[in-house]
Amino acid sequence: MDRKTLVAEIFRKKSFLCVGLDTEPARLPVSLQGWPDAVFEFNRQIIDATRDCCVAYKPNLAFYEALGAEGWRIFERTVEYIGKEHFIIADAKRGDIGNTSRLYAQAFFERLGCDAVTVAPYMGEDSVGPFLGFPGKWAIVLALTSNKGSADFQLTRHGDSEEKLYETVLRRAQTWGTPDNMMFVVGATHPEAFAHIRKIVPDHFLLVPGVGSQGGDLAAVCRYGLTPDCGLLVNASRSILYASPGADFAEAARTEALRIQQEMQKWIPT
Amino acid sequence: MDRKTLVAEIFRKKSFLCVGLDTEPARLPVSLQGWPDAVFEFNRQIIDATRDCCVAYKPNLAFYEALGAEGWRIFERTVEYIGKEHFIIADAKRGDIGNTSRLYAQAFFERLGCDAVTVAPYMGEDSVGPFLGFPGKWAIVLALTSNKGSADFQLTRHGDSEEKLYETVLRRAQTWGTPDNMMFVVGATHPEAFAHIRKIVPDHFLLVPGVGSQGGDLAAVCRYGLTPDCGLLVNASRSILYASPGADFAEAARTEALRIQQEMQKWIPT
Repeated sequence: MDRKTLVAEIFRKKSFLCVGLDTEPARLPVSLQGWPDAVFEFNRQIIDATRDCCVAYKPNLAFYEALGAEGWRIFERTVEYIGKEHFIIADAKRGDIGNTSRLYAQAFFERLGCDAVTVAPYMGEDSVGPFLGFPGKWAIVLALTSNKGSADFQLTRHGDSEEKLYETVLRRAQTWGTPDNMMFVVGATHPEAFAHIRKIVPDHFLLVPGVGSQGGDLAAVCRYGLTPDCGLLVNASRSILYASPGADFAEAARTEALRIQQEMQKWIPT
Repeated sequence: MDRKTLVAEIFRKKSFLCVGLDTEPARLPVSLQGWPDAVFEFNRQIIDATRDCCVAYKPNLAFYEALGAEGWRIFERTVEYIGKEHFIIADAKRGDIGNTSRLYAQAFFERLGCDAVTVAPYMGEDSVGPFLGFPGKWAIVLALTSNKGSADFQLTRHGDSEEKLYETVLRRAQTWGTPDNMMFVVGATHPEAFAHIRKIVPDHFLLVPGVGSQGGDLAAVCRYGLTPDCGLLVNASRSILYASPGADFAEAARTEALRIQQEMQKWIPT
C-alpha cells in the first residue's frame, strides 16, 4: 500500500489504529480451546470485529514461529484473510547482511504480500536497503523502542555531537529511503521525545507501540507526533486482543478498538 | 550443548569450523533440481559430507522463511538431521520486547532443539535476557558484524568515553550473561579488532562469519582471537556449500571444509 492510499484510509476511517495480532495459544478463551484451528479462528474473529476501526494490522512473527511450521501457515492465512484494504506490518525485526536481508524482503513482500516489515538498524545501511526496493512496500526501522532496554544503547550519546544513538539512526536512516518507503518505530512510552523526533523526521510515518498494556499516553503522542497527513500508526495489541478472557472476546476487542478510534478521531487533522 | 562439551568436541576434532547452511534453491546443482525435496536433500548431503570436519552448523533462517511454511519444515528437519553431536546455531538475529523474545527463545531452544540463537542488541537487556535462561543454550549477540554497514553505527563513538558502539555492546552485554550462555558475533572482515576485543571479553566464545566468500583472513582471526580453550567458532557458508556447482557438490564441499579444518588444526592450542 502506498503512502497516498494509507493517508486516505486514515482520513476516511478517522483512525490511525494498528491492531497487533500477538496471539498466544495460552490466552485464548476457553470457548476456542480444543478448536483444531483455534489461533486462526481467534485472529479471524478479531479481524472481523475491528476492520472498520483500524487501518493496519501487525502480526508479530514470534507468536507464529513459536508454533513451528503450522504457525507459519497460520501467519500466511491471517495475512491473506486481512486482505488488501488494510496496511499489513510483519513485525519481524529482521536485519542481516545484504543478500540475506533481500531474502527476508522477498519472503514478506512478494511471497506473503505484507506491506511493511520492521527492521533492526544495528547492521547498517546494507541490512536495511534491500527492504526499500519494492514499490508500495515499506521498511519500518527501529529507532526508539517501547521497552526498558531502550535505555541501554538507544538513549546513550553517540558520535561526536550531543546526539543519542536513536537520533543518529533517525538522521542517517532517512538518507537511505524516503517518506514513501520508510517509517520509524518510536515507543509511546517516550512521549517526551516526540516533539524532538519531529524535528529530525518531520514527514516520516512513525509506528508507535506501547499504548495500552505498556502504559503509553495516546494524547501526548498525538500532541507532539501528528503531522498534517497524520504521520502516525499507533499500535495496541494485548489491550484489544485480551479485552475479555471470555467467549465475548471479539465484542470486547471491538469495544476497546472503538474506544481508541474515538479518541483518535479528535486528533485527526481537519 | 554446554561449554565443556563444545570445547571437548573442538579439541577432539581439531576443528572450530561452523558450516553455514544458507541454502538457496536457485544455487542448487542441476542434479538436484526437480527433486521434490531438493533443499533438504542438499542439506543432508552437505551435512553427511562435513560432519567430521566441523563442530557446528548454522542455518540462517532467512533462507528457510523465503520458502514459507514448507521452508520452516525443512529447517526443522535439517536441525533434526544434524542431531545432538553438533552445536546448532539458529542464525535468526532476533530481539524484541521481553515477552516476545521469550517466545522466540522457546521456539528455537525448546521446540526446535537448537543450541544457540543469534540476537540483535539494539533493544537492550530485556530483549536479550530471555535467551539466557535455558541450561546449555546460548544467546549469540551481534557485536561487530562482517558487512559494510557495520561502519554505520557499530564503529562510531558511543557514550562519554572513547568507546565505539560495538565495544559498549560487548562490555554491557557480558554483564547480562556469562561465558557459559553468551557468545558474540565478530566478523572476520575486521581482523584488526580481535586483539582489542579480547581485552574486553577474554573468555567468551566468538562466532566469526566472513571467512571465505566475504574475504576474511582466518590466520589473523586466530592470531588475535584464540583463547586457551579455543574460544572461536569460525563460520563459512557459501565457499563450502557452493564449492562446486555440479553433481559433485558434496565432495567439493568436503574438500573445502577439510581444507579449512586443516588450517584450523595448526592453531588449536596443544
